[in-house]
Amino acid sequence: MTLRNAFYAQSGGVTAVINASACGVIETARQHPDRIGKVYAGRNGIIGALTEDLIDTSQESAAAIAGLKYTPAGAFGSCRYKLKGLEQNRAQYERLIEVFRAHDIGYFFYNGGGDSADTCLKVSHLSEHLGYPLQAIHIPKTVDNDLPHTDTCPGFGSVAKYIAIATREASLDVASMAATSTRVFILEVMGRHAGWIAAAGGLAADERHPVPLTLLFPEIPFEAERFLARVDEQVRTHGYCTVVVSEGVRDSSGQFLADAGQHDAFGHVQLGGTAPVLARLIKQSLGFKNHWAVADYLQRAARHIASKTDVEQAYALGQAAVEKAVNGATAIMPAIQRLSDQPYRWQIGEVALADVANVERKLPGEFISDDGYAITAACRTYLTPLIEGEDYPPYRHGLPDYVVLQNRAVPKKLPHPFSI
Amino acid sequence: MTLRNAFYAQSGGVTAVINASACGVIETARQHPDRIGKVYAGRNGIIGALTEDLIDTSQESAAAIAGLKYTPAGAFGSCRYKLKGLEQNRAQYERLIEVFRAHDIGYFFYNGGGDSADTCLKVSHLSEHLGYPLQAIHIPKTVDNDLPHTDTCPGFGSVAKYIAIATREASLDVASMAATSTRVFILEVMGRHAGWIAAAGGLAADERHPVPLTLLFPEIPFEAERFLARVDEQVRTHGYCTVVVSEGVRDSSGQFLADAGQHDAFGHVQLGGTAPVLARLIKQSLGFKNHWAVADYLQRAARHIASKTDVEQAYALGQAAVEKAVNGATAIMPAIQRLSDQPYRWQIGEVALADVANVERKLPGEFISDDGYAITAACRTYLTPLIEGEDYPPYRHGLPDYVVLQNRAVPKKLPHPFSI
Repeated sequence: MTLRNAFYAQSGGVTAVINASACGVIETARQHPDRIGKVYAGRNGIIGALTEDLIDTSQESAAAIAGLKYTPAGAFGSCRYKLKGLEQNRAQYERLIEVFRAHDIGYFFYNGGGDSADTCLKVSHLSEHLGYPLQAIHIPKTVDNDLPHTDTCPGFGSVAKYIAIATREASLDVASMAATSTRVFILEVMGRHAGWIAAAGGLAADERHPVPLTLLFPEIPFEAERFLARVDEQVRTHGYCTVVVSEGVRDSSGQFLADAGQHDAFGHVQLGGTAPVLARLIKQSLGFKNHWAVADYLQRAARHIASKTDVEQAYALGQAAVEKAVNGATAIMPAIQRLSDQPYRWQIGEVALADVANVERKLPGEFISDDGYAITAACRTYLTPLIEGEDYPPYRHGLPDYVVLQNRAVPKKLPHPFSI
Repeated sequence: MTLRNAFYAQSGGVTAVINASACGVIETARQHPDRIGKVYAGRNGIIGALTEDLIDTSQESAAAIAGLKYTPAGAFGSCRYKLKGLEQNRAQYERLIEVFRAHDIGYFFYNGGGDSADTCLKVSHLSEHLGYPLQAIHIPKTVDNDLPHTDTCPGFGSVAKYIAIATREASLDVASMAATSTRVFILEVMGRHAGWIAAAGGLAADERHPVPLTLLFPEIPFEAERFLARVDEQVRTHGYCTVVVSEGVRDSSGQFLADAGQHDAFGHVQLGGTAPVLARLIKQSLGFKNHWAVADYLQRAARHIASKTDVEQAYALGQAAVEKAVNGATAIMPAIQRLSDQPYRWQIGEVALADVANVERKLPGEFISDDGYAITAACRTYLTPLIEGEDYPPYRHGLPDYVVLQNRAVPKKLPHPFSI
């Protein structure tokens, strides 16, 4: 058996549980000292590989690595950087090989979403096209939940739980105030292309907690008059209503609703946000006092209320990536396969990376009600297990005691820098 | 001993723990069946009293009342409605007496902030001026933390904990992204007049968690150039920074920063929010990519991560209000007295309502750093115990299983309605 080092990096928007995958990778690699030497993390994703800026995770204690399981965001830094094709930028790939060879890296673990899967696929080609022996495995991660061939993507379940809880809590608030004050609450959530996160807002209402909700998905073109009629009807019937809106909602001409507030007729620049645009529309058209919130990073960083299911899956996928690597796999992504809805049972399978890269999974039509403003029972059946369970971090002085790694650099071996 | 009924109502903006005070009132009243008959809750605050819209809390099970301790917002509905003085609107006071007499109400518990303390004080005058025997006791509640003569106000500790956690979590996120993407994160928090909540953002950073923070308080006039210089310096030194801004920040001319975006030179109406105004300023002046969030109701409804200290104090104040009432008190407010910082020890004292009504406690100067952008050690010492401890609600299907009361109306006894 050959002993080689591993490279691990985080890519794209970070999540509440991407570090749980890192934990799964590093802890599992440490269980294979006959196969995997050190795990080097790329500082700021693939950029760390290109610039030979590697972090020596073997310097971190077992306790610190275990703490990654309950620490949000990217402990090694992430990046928004997409590798070009081998033909367009051969120098990048040659540099990667140079760095990997210098540090004897035989395993490449890349933890990200759709763009990162594409990067990982390209790196896997290094073996074939440039003759450098490397196993490249992609570990799924994205709050957007838009990767194909996996039941869900780590990060999504925790955002879904956060948004469902926030929607329920804020709805109780506005219901309390509606008699003399606020009638409508608007919560803007992430989701530029797909309505998965807005759909999670629909879980706030159930048979014990009746909440008049209106969900706005990017999949459904926004129609102002029909939307206003619904809000008006809900307020008249229930006294109040809550709107959960995807940041990516567009009108029938394809214009983002947020852009309606970004440039006025005189070219004034954006104040941004879909929620404030809706707030203004409701106030002007219906006269209802309203409040709005934009969750932004709070939703994807909210490790304090992460889904236990999500944490377990994130860890298991990191673990499986390493197990599959030592068993010889390459150019694959471990994936979640759902075996049953209730109780939720799942296992780890695997998908060829070529089937994952650059494919986007939208919210299916059968998950959206006919009027376009609610989720269906099928959607609820899909979503509910993903937010099941709490996995609270430890606290100190009233705050989550998240780990901060030392992130010591591996001494550079190459004579020249590389500009990206 | 006379047996009389009690009236309880919730007033003003609701909080994560105002129902814990309701729980304290109702559970304690049930322990005094020789003195207190039924607890009638006003539907939507004092409006329920004026309109004889009373809720019979005796119809709720012990389990449902116990559930109030972990349920956010106002279970009986709140209101934004301030009673005028006796001279200006004698009819309102005569109506209150009429309703209270019809339902034999001898105890009046009003749960709110500064305006509500004023209402409660006026109601306490009914006894003296209109000859109706009534004991009126105010139970403090406000996320603004601006009531005098109490160490803190229930609701504040939980918002402080939420904002401190959100700031820490989002800061980890932006730190991960800063190499190639977002450099600045801006979180807008409540606090129109006082910077207590923004100050809580300062707790996100500590010796284990270094976070470059810039806090903007309403107490400190906003100076754009000095602010931008600080953000620029923090980004250059640390790679990123996080700004926590009170919604009520104003410039040196006294104009709300949020208004800068609300009406442009052509009279276009508001898109609102202080955070997006800062986001635009930073982008235009420094060029840094940034993200912003507006927490709005999410912060004050976030019972899922309430401060255990806050929950305990909210309950204890409701309990004390009833104990003091059966011991003959009136026109007072039970208050928190701090005995020591660490460990935090406190007891319930009492304050004359006349000393509370219409007095606003701002963030003291010695809690703000000399440059105006940070909290001092004294502020940290004050705030830390208030966010100590977690008090998680029960969950069902991945969501907090908050109670929903039946809220059955007490049959009306008066022949005529009252318009408010």
